[in-house]
Amino acid sequence: MPKSNSHSSTEKHFGHIHNLLQSGTLKQVKHSLRVLTPVQLARVIESSPPHTRSVIWELIGKSARTELIEELPEDIQSFYLAQMNTEDLVELTETLETDDIVDILQNLPDQITQQVLEAMSDQDRERVTAVLAYPENTAGGLTNTDTITVRPKFTLDVVLRYLRRHNELPPSTDSLIVVNKKDMYLGLLPLATLLTKPGDTTVREVMVTDANPISADLDESDVAKLFEQNDWVSAPVVDEQGKLIGRITIDDVVDVIRETADHSFMGAAGLDEEEDTFATTARTTPRRALWLGINLITALLASSVINLFQDTIDKVVALAVLMPIVASMGGVAGSQTLTVVIRGMALGHISRNNLGWLMSREVRVGIINGLLWALVMAGIAGLWFGDWRISFIIAAAMIINLITAALAGALLPIGLKAMRIDPALAGGVTLTTITDVVGFFAFLGLATYFYA
Amino acid sequence: MPKSNSHSSTEKHFGHIHNLLQSGTLKQVKHSLRVLTPVQLARVIESSPPHTRSVIWELIGKSARTELIEELPEDIQSFYLAQMNTEDLVELTETLETDDIVDILQNLPDQITQQVLEAMSDQDRERVTAVLAYPENTAGGLTNTDTITVRPKFTLDVVLRYLRRHNELPPSTDSLIVVNKKDMYLGLLPLATLLTKPGDTTVREVMVTDANPISADLDESDVAKLFEQNDWVSAPVVDEQGKLIGRITIDDVVDVIRETADHSFMGAAGLDEEEDTFATTARTTPRRALWLGINLITALLASSVINLFQDTIDKVVALAVLMPIVASMGGVAGSQTLTVVIRGMALGHISRNNLGWLMSREVRVGIINGLLWALVMAGIAGLWFGDWRISFIIAAAMIINLITAALAGALLPIGLKAMRIDPALAGGVTLTTITDVVGFFAFLGLATYFYA
Repeated sequence: MPKSNSHSSTEKHFGHIHNLLQSGTLKQVKHSLRVLTPVQLARVIESSPPHTRSVIWELIGKSARTELIEELPEDIQSFYLAQMNTEDLVELTETLETDDIVDILQNLPDQITQQVLEAMSDQDRERVTAVLAYPENTAGGLTNTDTITVRPKFTLDVVLRYLRRHNELPPSTDSLIVVNKKDMYLGLLPLATLLTKPGDTTVREVMVTDANPISADLDESDVAKLFEQNDWVSAPVVDEQGKLIGRITIDDVVDVIRETADHSFMGAAGLDEEEDTFATTARTTPRRALWLGINLITALLASSVINLFQDTIDKVVALAVLMPIVASMGGVAGSQTLTVVIRGMALGHISRNNLGWLMSREVRVGIINGLLWALVMAGIAGLWFGDWRISFIIAAAMIINLITAALAGALLPIGLKAMRIDPALAGGVTLTTITDVVGFFAFLGLATYFYA
Repeated sequence: MPKSNSHSSTEKHFGHIHNLLQSGTLKQVKHSLRVLTPVQLARVIESSPPHTRSVIWELIGKSARTELIEELPEDIQSFYLAQMNTEDLVELTETLETDDIVDILQNLPDQITQQVLEAMSDQDRERVTAVLAYPENTAGGLTNTDTITVRPKFTLDVVLRYLRRHNELPPSTDSLIVVNKKDMYLGLLPLATLLTKPGDTTVREVMVTDANPISADLDESDVAKLFEQNDWVSAPVVDEQGKLIGRITIDDVVDVIRETADHSFMGAAGLDEEEDTFATTARTTPRRALWLGINLITALLASSVINLFQDTIDKVVALAVLMPIVASMGGVAGSQTLTVVIRGMALGHISRNNLGWLMSREVRVGIINGLLWALVMAGIAGLWFGDWRISFIIAAAMIINLITAALAGALLPIGLKAMRIDPALAGGVTLTTITDVVGFFAFLGLATYFYA
């Protein structure tokens, strides 16, 4: 249910606070901050350069900080968590859902995690350690233990009276979970069923049982696919024995979907999906430097290929003018194939059964587009340099490079994945190394043959 | 609530069906298809090359097709919709939610849309045309008119009795919507409140009113942000007068989030986010060709810069060996900045207030990393060619190009957006054109000066 003001008004708040920080009194800023919801405050912090962030952090009270911190993206959150003492951390965990506590604990040093766990109530500690046992990127790591369970033998009227004893239901509760005495999962009782079926019906008669609960060890990307395909709002999670651990809610799945998609986009530039837009220069520089260094090595590799053909270039300097075109067209064609295959893998479309068809289509597209643009380029080169040998050489090199690009673009992500290297991260840089090397080699090699 | 089998079992189904299509009888295939849910069938279709798709489409019955079609991604869906006659289309719309009907109608020729609308019941037509009035990418276009509304004066017991008269509630109903006699939005009655508060309480006493409903003309990306920030399952949508139109549910918002994220990733390679992984060669080739053609023009631009310096390259052929390094490092550095800024814009982080800080950080990072790798490259070039003039030239050119890359990467997406050009699509290609041209010009220009 809506709780906050609209998006545009958040932007207004930010502009207002920014102006006050420039020219207003601290008292005015403090007042403006006090009227913001934790979500709005988190957005203002996210959209602020480091200095503004620390001013705002100092100005808001301790209780506002606690509410704010869970709304922050991971990168900024860990920065502030590192500054909190154990006592504050324990207090923070008291208001959060299990999966959010676990996310925070996983960002802390082990020693602090232990201290926070010891300070918790027995019941809370038990619930948190149950979820902590599963890796962060599995269904278990997304599980919230805060659920309402019912037994199959009750009537709906009994369930309704039982719910009245609660002050509220856990967020995103769309179903109660039906379990037996040993907490083994039996089925779901959707609230919609509870509200529309006669009160003297038993839970057993109306519960949904064609629903497979999620195994705690299922990968989070598969969890996201199940939610997307079935339009779930929440789903029960069970351990290997079928015992209920808790449930996963759509808000956490939305975060997984956003992060997975951002990972492909950011990874192509060697960046992390949690990257803070306003990270300091000191934090940003080394992360970017590493990626530039890797690229320098691949660029040197391409240069060393050109180096082999110095004599040919010395004879026909037009080759130096045209050679980047062959490499560039291969890079673009390859990245198109790579993008389609990485996305197809992420959506679970690609398997051994259809990879052959996909590769043959990519090669066919590569040949047709290679022929088309090779012809165009041959014409341009011939008119430009008045030498039809160079037309033939660039056309042949382009066709070779576009076919290479199609094969590399389709096979690389699959090969990298098999080697447990992330294709979203390494795919692009490996691909352009291949298309540069092959492009320069084909073009200059053919030229050496024809101009020898 | 869970309705289908797990992800891995869907993959098993696909392998099984594929094997049967290779070696089994049609009867066996037909039988295997019959046990699949519409969602599983859609996944098998999505993951199949065109020929397999048509075999499956022929084998499943007409009623299975109707259920299947709404589960298919847009690109494949429009292919099958184009083959259906008006009668089938009307039948199809009878089982769908308003926003899904509208999505389908928007994919059809205007004339067919008119025919389908005319064949609908008056009530359905009224609801569908209300939503059709809003552009596809606004809150209005995502709106589902199927809602349950209550009046503020009723007691919760009356509401409970009213719900019992329904056979079921619309999917993803987490709140009833409170309206007055004129259908003006007043607030929300969460099911959780209905189930936990005393039955003699009135709706007015417990309804949530600190919730701003969504305006029908709000952009869909802003709708997604509101859902993400507030962990909503559904939210009411109102027109300019505050009259209730319907509600948006999280499943449609998840699609928006997925599509927006895919758009950035696919757009960088000139591809559409709805791209069908298994589109035919005939469909794929022209789409890719266009992007390759645009890239050829930019590559020719870079070549024409090199062409200016033929005499210098003729004198010092080592320049031809090293020049791609300068261009490539600029391209990589620029794409890092571009990626951070495009993501920051998508998340609503970047505004006039903080753009200055962001640009100055990018330039600082560019200078530091430029100096670092320029130094490394100067050493390598000196050792390689035994000429320290070339070391100085490549180092200076790299620093110039990395600073250019930082400025271009930060300003391009903002400039393109102001010109109403999509940065996700045009950003990368424009950026590398700039870093290629500046890289070649700086490197060869400096060389001409020093070797003249």
